[in-house]
Amino acid sequence: MTAIIRLSSLHLCLTLAKGSGEFKWKGDTRKMRTTLTDTGVTNVPNITNVTYEEIDVGQTASYTREVSERDIQLFAAASGDVNPLHLDADYAAGTQFGERIAHGMLTGGFISAALAMALPGPGCLYRGQTLRFRLPVKIGDVITVTLEVTEKKDRTRLVTLDCKAANQDGKLVTSGTAEVIAPTEKLVVPLPEAPDFG
Amino acid sequence: MTAIIRLSSLHLCLTLAKGSGEFKWKGDTRKMRTTLTDTGVTNVPNITNVTYEEIDVGQTASYTREVSERDIQLFAAASGDVNPLHLDADYAAGTQFGERIAHGMLTGGFISAALAMALPGPGCLYRGQTLRFRLPVKIGDVITVTLEVTEKKDRTRLVTLDCKAANQDGKLVTSGTAEVIAPTEKLVVPLPEAPDFG
Repeated sequence: MTAIIRLSSLHLCLTLAKGSGEFKWKGDTRKMRTTLTDTGVTNVPNITNVTYEEIDVGQTASYTREVSERDIQLFAAASGDVNPLHLDADYAAGTQFGERIAHGMLTGGFISAALAMALPGPGCLYRGQTLRFRLPVKIGDVITVTLEVTEKKDRTRLVTLDCKAANQDGKLVTSGTAEVIAPTEKLVVPLPEAPDFG
Repeated sequence: MTAIIRLSSLHLCLTLAKGSGEFKWKGDTRKMRTTLTDTGVTNVPNITNVTYEEIDVGQTASYTREVSERDIQLFAAASGDVNPLHLDADYAAGTQFGERIAHGMLTGGFISAALAMALPGPGCLYRGQTLRFRLPVKIGDVITVTLEVTEKKDRTRLVTLDCKAANQDGKLVTSGTAEVIAPTEKLVVPLPEAPDFG
């Protein structure tokens, strides 16, 4: 996996060449600068998390990813959902969608990736998620997931985040609410190699 | 993809060798017999759906699948979530879980597979899902998703289903509620080849 790390005073950005996704963080830049570090070893970036203490209501993170035919096939293989609407172009052409569409839960996977990789990142515990599937996602669509912290509960460290996934036209395709237990400990962990399926 | 189709007076069962999952339907067997047919071509099964009219409150379907390391890697590649808790055995050994765990949303994918493949199956529109992640899912766990119809709204054909995912010890790992628009039209569609990633 090659990784391109760009730092600016406004946001952090991590591009994963294999996964073709891009994570960004916005908020207090002093905090944000600590959310991504480089080990000094070429092409082996670390990610760090945002601890409960560092999380503010209103803080955001985003994850942008182009949906490929391959992503849909990988999700079908992972889940066992081989419904022809997702895999069979001829069948899908005869449906109301006119072409293959991505599994709704693949966009759910992008939301969970944003939580697990960006805000809060490693060490968080995923407690719950609601999802409202609003518009179909097609091959080639560029989906941007935006997370925004809406509530913190100090006693349990439960953090609630508003989750929106929009396409390249800015149209909301999926929305929902996530609940996570944010970590107390600051972690710096090397990113594993992205699985390579050729 | 090889497929084994077993019919009995009690339930239907479809085993997908490549996907290593198994779907079952229970309920009115006269109806259920129509939910799976064979084209007569060896190893090319069709699936059919359960239409809104055929759906009864209390009707159930299940999907059982053993979670493999490969499923987790496929989901990581599909979603971009390469958090080391899922992919790095050494890192995961040092966490509270003691070993790698599956992405919570992979179990969400099993639930969506049960909806898309079994009840209602092809032609349904996925409108919403809630998920509560209760226990970690580990490599080798055998997860059974059970769907049960709890409500039907005739005007909109909206069907609400209770969703439970339990492990081989019968412990509830994930629960939630799904909302789908059930199809009006009876469909008989050939199962696509499961994507083969070697």
